[in-house]
Amino acid sequence: MSKRITDYKNGEQMSLEAVIKLSDYRLAKNGKHFLSLVFEDKSGQIPGKYWDASEQDANDFKVGAIVQLDGKRDLYQGKPQVTIARLGVIDPNTVDMSRFVQTAPEKRSDMENEFEDVFLQITNGAWNRIVRYLFKKFHEQFFTSPAAKSNHHDFQGGLAFHTLSMVRLAEKISDQYAQVNRALLIAGACLHDLGKVIELLGNLGIEYTFEGNMIGHITIVDEEITLAAKELDIKLDSEDMILLRHMVLSHHGLLEYGSPERPKLLEAEILHDIDVLDASINMISKALDKTDPGNFSERIFGMDNRSFYKHS
Amino acid sequence: MSKRITDYKNGEQMSLEAVIKLSDYRLAKNGKHFLSLVFEDKSGQIPGKYWDASEQDANDFKVGAIVQLDGKRDLYQGKPQVTIARLGVIDPNTVDMSRFVQTAPEKRSDMENEFEDVFLQITNGAWNRIVRYLFKKFHEQFFTSPAAKSNHHDFQGGLAFHTLSMVRLAEKISDQYAQVNRALLIAGACLHDLGKVIELLGNLGIEYTFEGNMIGHITIVDEEITLAAKELDIKLDSEDMILLRHMVLSHHGLLEYGSPERPKLLEAEILHDIDVLDASINMISKALDKTDPGNFSERIFGMDNRSFYKHS
Amino acid sequence: MSKRITDYKNGEQMSLEAVIKLSDYRLAKNGKHFLSLVFEDKSGQIPGKYWDASEQDANDFKVGAIVQLDGKRDLYQGKPQVTIARLGVIDPNTVDMSRFVQTAPEKRSDMENEFEDVFLQITNGAWNRIVRYLFKKFHEQFFTSPAAKSNHHDFQGGLAFHTLSMVRLAEKISDQYAQVNRALLIAGACLHDLGKVIELLGNLGIEYTFEGNMIGHITIVDEEITLAAKELDIKLDSEDMILLRHMVLSHHGLLEYGSPERPKLLEAEILHDIDVLDASINMISKALDKTDPGNFSERIFGMDNRSFYKHS
Amino acid sequence: MSKRITDYKNGEQMSLEAVIKLSDYRLAKNGKHFLSLVFEDKSGQIPGKYWDASEQDANDFKVGAIVQLDGKRDLYQGKPQVTIARLGVIDPNTVDMSRFVQTAPEKRSDMENEFEDVFLQITNGAWNRIVRYLFKKFHEQFFTSPAAKSNHHDFQGGLAFHTLSMVRLAEKISDQYAQVNRALLIAGACLHDLGKVIELLGNLGIEYTFEGNMIGHITIVDEEITLAAKELDIKLDSEDMILLRHMVLSHHGLLEYGSPERPKLLEAEILHDIDVLDASINMISKALDKTDPGNFSERIFGMDNRSFYKHS
Amino acid sequence: MSKRITDYKNGEQMSLEAVIKLSDYRLAKNGKHFLSLVFEDKSGQIPGKYWDASEQDANDFKVGAIVQLDGKRDLYQGKPQVTIARLGVIDPNTVDMSRFVQTAPEKRSDMENEFEDVFLQITNGAWNRIVRYLFKKFHEQFFTSPAAKSNHHDFQGGLAFHTLSMVRLAEKISDQYAQVNRALLIAGACLHDLGKVIELLGNLGIEYTFEGNMIGHITIVDEEITLAAKELDIKLDSEDMILLRHMVLSHHGLLEYGSPERPKLLEAEILHDIDVLDASINMISKALDKTDPGNFSERIFGMDNRSFYKHS
Amino acid sequence: MSKRITDYKNGEQMSLEAVIKLSDYRLAKNGKHFLSLVFEDKSGQIPGKYWDASEQDANDFKVGAIVQLDGKRDLYQGKPQVTIARLGVIDPNTVDMSRFVQTAPEKRSDMENEFEDVFLQITNGAWNRIVRYLFKKFHEQFFTSPAAKSNHHDFQGGLAFHTLSMVRLAEKISDQYAQVNRALLIAGACLHDLGKVIELLGNLGIEYTFEGNMIGHITIVDEEITLAAKELDIKLDSEDMILLRHMVLSHHGLLEYGSPERPKLLEAEILHDIDVLDASINMISKALDKTDPGNFSERIFGMDNRSFYKHS
Repeated sequence: MSKRITDYKNGEQMSLEAVIKLSDYRLAKNGKHFLSLVFEDKSGQIPGKYWDASEQDANDFKVGAIVQLDGKRDLYQGKPQVTIARLGVIDPNTVDMSRFVQTAPEKRSDMENEFEDVFLQITNGAWNRIVRYLFKKFHEQFFTSPAAKSNHHDFQGGLAFHTLSMVRLAEKISDQYAQVNRALLIAGACLHDLGKVIELLGNLGIEYTFEGNMIGHITIVDEEITLAAKELDIKLDSEDMILLRHMVLSHHGLLEYGSPERPKLLEAEILHDIDVLDASINMISKALDKTDPGNFSERIFGMDNRSFYKHS
Repeated sequence: MSKRITDYKNGEQMSLEAVIKLSDYRLAKNGKHFLSLVFEDKSGQIPGKYWDASEQDANDFKVGAIVQLDGKRDLYQGKPQVTIARLGVIDPNTVDMSRFVQTAPEKRSDMENEFEDVFLQITNGAWNRIVRYLFKKFHEQFFTSPAAKSNHHDFQGGLAFHTLSMVRLAEKISDQYAQVNRALLIAGACLHDLGKVIELLGNLGIEYTFEGNMIGHITIVDEEITLAAKELDIKLDSEDMILLRHMVLSHHGLLEYGSPERPKLLEAEILHDIDVLDASINMISKALDKTDPGNFSERIFGMDNRSFYKHS
Repeated sequence: MSKRITDYKNGEQMSLEAVIKLSDYRLAKNGKHFLSLVFEDKSGQIPGKYWDASEQDANDFKVGAIVQLDGKRDLYQGKPQVTIARLGVIDPNTVDMSRFVQTAPEKRSDMENEFEDVFLQITNGAWNRIVRYLFKKFHEQFFTSPAAKSNHHDFQGGLAFHTLSMVRLAEKISDQYAQVNRALLIAGACLHDLGKVIELLGNLGIEYTFEGNMIGHITIVDEEITLAAKELDIKLDSEDMILLRHMVLSHHGLLEYGSPERPKLLEAEILHDIDVLDASINMISKALDKTDPGNFSERIFGMDNRSFYKHS
Repeated sequence: MSKRITDYKNGEQMSLEAVIKLSDYRLAKNGKHFLSLVFEDKSGQIPGKYWDASEQDANDFKVGAIVQLDGKRDLYQGKPQVTIARLGVIDPNTVDMSRFVQTAPEKRSDMENEFEDVFLQITNGAWNRIVRYLFKKFHEQFFTSPAAKSNHHDFQGGLAFHTLSMVRLAEKISDQYAQVNRALLIAGACLHDLGKVIELLGNLGIEYTFEGNMIGHITIVDEEITLAAKELDIKLDSEDMILLRHMVLSHHGLLEYGSPERPKLLEAEILHDIDVLDASINMISKALDKTDPGNFSERIFGMDNRSFYKHS
Repeated sequence: MSKRITDYKNGEQMSLEAVIKLSDYRLAKNGKHFLSLVFEDKSGQIPGKYWDASEQDANDFKVGAIVQLDGKRDLYQGKPQVTIARLGVIDPNTVDMSRFVQTAPEKRSDMENEFEDVFLQITNGAWNRIVRYLFKKFHEQFFTSPAAKSNHHDFQGGLAFHTLSMVRLAEKISDQYAQVNRALLIAGACLHDLGKVIELLGNLGIEYTFEGNMIGHITIVDEEITLAAKELDIKLDSEDMILLRHMVLSHHGLLEYGSPERPKLLEAEILHDIDVLDASINMISKALDKTDPGNFSERIFGMDNRSFYKHS
Repeated sequence: MSKRITDYKNGEQMSLEAVIKLSDYRLAKNGKHFLSLVFEDKSGQIPGKYWDASEQDANDFKVGAIVQLDGKRDLYQGKPQVTIARLGVIDPNTVDMSRFVQTAPEKRSDMENEFEDVFLQITNGAWNRIVRYLFKKFHEQFFTSPAAKSNHHDFQGGLAFHTLSMVRLAEKISDQYAQVNRALLIAGACLHDLGKVIELLGNLGIEYTFEGNMIGHITIVDEEITLAAKELDIKLDSEDMILLRHMVLSHHGLLEYGSPERPKLLEAEILHDIDVLDASINMISKALDKTDPGNFSERIFGMDNRSFYKHS
């Protein structure tokens, strides 16, 4: 198999297929235009500049295009970039798309199977029916969506993978603390971010949808639960339904993080805490993956701009 | 007509019918029990203590009970209270309930008529149908609910009156600023607090419902709009529906005030501003009504605990 | 009449007279100098770069200079700019200055007349005399000053126009809420930003004066009221004068926005609220004017950096 | 075995031995003194007032005294209290002290054994030696100290129990996330609150020591690590020692919570997160234990004064 | 000379003349009224309750009344109070008022003399004339006013004493740092709190005046400087006058502390810092004066509610 | 003596020896590399760009290198920079290093002597021994270290100079306020920043050490005091030692500024206040030194980004 982006060393000549993740057409100080590009394949990303770009170039090399990239791996302010020698568009139908798309580190079918087992632990009838109904309705999107625009789990299947990680934490905590309502915690974990299938669009360049921007994924999933309850003829003002909606509405923990209510259930507080925990571990690990031992990572926006140290 | 609570002067003997607004059974330092009560009629409120109260008394004189109150109007730490001489329960069926319930300063039928004219200004089909559908569904509650537990418009019909005041401001602002979308602003004003018909309960002692406490009126009205759209077969992800939902979701202005999204429409920003304006005027005026000219009012919780001065 | 800045379409050759609004002499990466310029006429603004600029050029093309501009309208990172072909200074005495200066959307004489009617509503003697005295003293500056350095109403006559908008809102609110002291609210609206005639300088490039920077317009207008009272022999410690000074001192609402006192009068609270309302409407509308339907505006600094959506 | 505090029902006559947890000598409004007391045994607490108390009574019934309490269980503002009929001091040597002291829900010997297994997982020599050295030095205090003055784990052995809960979470997270350094995370969990053996004093009425008040448990444990390294001849400025000190210094997460450094290690971030998680679960569960199903708990100070709902 | 309030020990019979500093007429739980009083003489204060108080008593024993107090010094919740045996009003004309009024710890004439020397260091003509003009205009009030309602320097002459302490710090800092403009720093120190002569009223019970409440001492002194400049024919917009006004306007340091401008001069920053320093030292020392060695003081409101430790 | 960096005027040819303070190897828009450099000698700094830099150049002209610089002093966006004509490395052994290093404005030997007198004022045995022990242990570093990475006192000897300035303020305040414990305040001033000898590294380009980054200077000095007490056999939990540690731990004043405890001693509060005062004076003066009279300084990061005005 041919080499991928992160397989190249500094100073080495690169020649590979990649997808364009970001593309920005800019005017240089000398009055000419260039394209500021980011290339991506499954292994990772590398930025590069395409000089003396025409408007046609800007059109060809847009976000999502598959390209043949030739150039040299360089360092620019301590970060890798490619000095582009030649760049050409490739017909997407002639290539194996799975080569370019970063995906969850576990197989989709394994995750699908594990979720089937997860549902069995939701022993409350109303919650079980709502969760199964919505997972059926959004099955395909759930297993292909990212969990965020950037920051953490920002890849194809990221939503399913993040959700599964949280379910696993939920199971362990339910084991350790007998007072926890396992069914409620797991149902909440399953649904908490499901609104992102409507909030976010695309996996070769993730964007907010208009609905995501104006309504937000927390309200979107609450609306979907509301419609599901109507459809399944479950009373919206039953305690079961109020608790389930509260779980997803409060999972950001604080009003200033977009939750219209703060957690008022033990399980809601735990759901918020493990969401923070799994996201933090993912963000820090992603940054440390790109850091050499004995060094500090780049600053992580989602972690209050902190740098983290990698043990030597 | 007999005298009402606020008609009595200091030192005067009181004898009147009232409703019990608050009732708290407490142990005195001397080991005996007393009831800390607040009496209310349409004119206003007065607190009083009922000494040596038995458990039976606590049961009789509970929130919502109609009583015959005899005593003397006194001052305690500068605030009026009644020194109770005699207190007896009255059969609510023998009295004119309208005597006790504080209501909106405008007649319900006038408000109902004015709203009919208001709906005519909502010239967008989707918005008009949603507003009419929900005003029909919650008609009775809308014209009897308060707009808040305390703070502002905390009386029967307060929700309709507050909504109408905001609609009038919305009309005036649409007149003055040609760039405003009148139909959207008025539709938003009509719906913004409608969730309070589910969030709040009662008008002789207002309480949050369980659903109100766990879900909140902002999300509740959004869910009702969602169900209405389903019922009326209007697409939820149409621009019209996204804008309307955004209006109600963002009307608290800041995330920390419970809006899951900040205003991103000119009309949403205005809706938030006139909500603050009408609520502030109501809160300050309520406090100044109880203040003598040339003095400062009591501190107003909803206005960051400020005192306001009444011109002499 | 010849075309103005905003009349040109993308890709079109421009040839017009304009005033230089901003001018910054910078060193390019290639060691040569260029001028980063912003051109303005009554219709709006457009930026452009002047390459290989000498120190003489920097001197000629400074802020406030009238120039003949030839070039091509281009897009740079999605925003219009002019690629300059030729630039020449024009003798300001040979051109009609009114062509360049952005002004209030209402005629000065109309505004002057309306203010005469406004003063009649200030039915308190002390307030009426103070307002008339200060409007006479600063008449010319009041009708030519901007209301801000940037953000909102940042054009010639902006101060008078913003003040008049607020007076109109004040009138409407006094109509709707009977408890409002109309004379006080209108007097406060008239004076609240008058200190800006001293705080801000110029209308072809607005800057803070030294006094504006070190003292601030809130204190400046308070000082002017103090001197006016002395001149008119009105007692400074009378209730009338204390209330009027409080109106202007508290109109920013919060200490952290520069008001040394928070509002303690119903009318002071309203004055603050309508100041926010009119400024917000102006800022959002200005941004939406430059936005295509169905898109989000640029981020607005004065609105906590939010983007606003323009209905499609 | 005789009945304990929480075994009694409302209205029932109580007769039992208890320890005085709080005692406050106050002047009643009638000019006489009373004692405001809180009684405790292993099952829980109940408050009560002792009327007409002499100075001798205040001396006898002080914090830590063992008493024979006779009275009636009552409700006061919805909370249980005892109306004291008779109160007498008991010689502590004649009673089984274990009856009064609330202790960790697991046996000390079991916890001691489990910690031995825990230490085996600290596979770094420096960390292992430091942890073993300090656990030996403070062995007795560690297994008898509370983990806090109030809020969470405020009972004998609370520190060991809270530490063990965190170690168990640390183990589970190390299992789930392969990138975590298990030895470092567990060493940090073991030491993070060890300074509390010096910061807090007593278990029948927990108080801050002078050193705890002026220095704080975070700095205290850092000092103990410093001295231990000196004693064990481990270089303080080695990476191992810097990482270990950083773990304990940063475990409060934010500077405003008393950590002089924010977490800069993946393991330090996790340590902070699971500290919050275990403390939250303990605080909420403690409050829900005292709450009837279908009700909200009392407000919890350590959870931003929120009430939590107990499923019906 | 007879004994003063702080000369008595616990349990001792008290018999002395005092002034009533605070008086609150309250209803006891038993339905009777009492007066909650605070007595003061030059040595300090002691609280006490007067039981079964009639309305006449409330009228007699009001704030500012001189009384003969007989009773016993007691401890209530660890704080001294007097159990009143007998209380009678004394004709103020028959007593030496200086006995009751707490005053600055330095003689007024000494302070007056020192200020004369201070003025000589203000070597700028404009500043010197303004300072001398205002110190002449408010001479009597300046040497009798307190510097605050409570918190710090809340006694007769407190304003002069606080001002002088700050001038002394200003001199020392000007000595140590050659770059400081001594004349400006001292002029600012002299004037910074002068507005308090109008803001605060009385020294037997200090209250805010209406003008103080609505305008604030910072703006008041700025207005006085404005009028003085007019009177002395010094141009208000000269650099000298702008700097001087800036000094007093910015001396609270932050907008949220009531300064309409933040310090923009080295001397303005220093003025703010030494204001904080002198006020802190005064507040802490006042609290430590009432604290026994080896103990913590009561919480100090003006120091973020912290307790301070007194060395043993 | 030859001219130094700040001796040159605009437009003048420069030829001098300097040290490289900052060096950044960057890619220009034209695809070539350049070095962004800052040159420094004892008189001050000047930036400059070195075009068409090879990797060898980047290696030669690194931070700390001594160079012969020829070029022309220019203005770039209003700030001086040098247009480099020629740049060559110089053997550091051939030059007088004292020419390049900015140092404290007082002679080291004078400061050393003054500290000897200072120690005499620490009349408490424990404090005196600890201070002398640590000043002996870190003598050389203390007199050569900077007090900060940038902001204030960021030069060789800056730590000693800042410490001495604070001691002088501490002496003056102890003179003026009799209640201050002079020995404790001075001991605290001596030790408060001593941890910086370990936290910061280098004086030709100051960096945080790994230990400084992960532990922080406040904890570092506390650890050193702990070890010193052990060495000198002074009990760590004696009041003397607790007070001294509290002084250094709390000197940042607020938790959010990195102090694990807020000041709880009068002397600790003063220590914090004079630390702020001396640092502010140093930062503002440094900025004003580079400002022409009648102008505002550049914004100062450490002063909340404010500009300060320099009197004309």
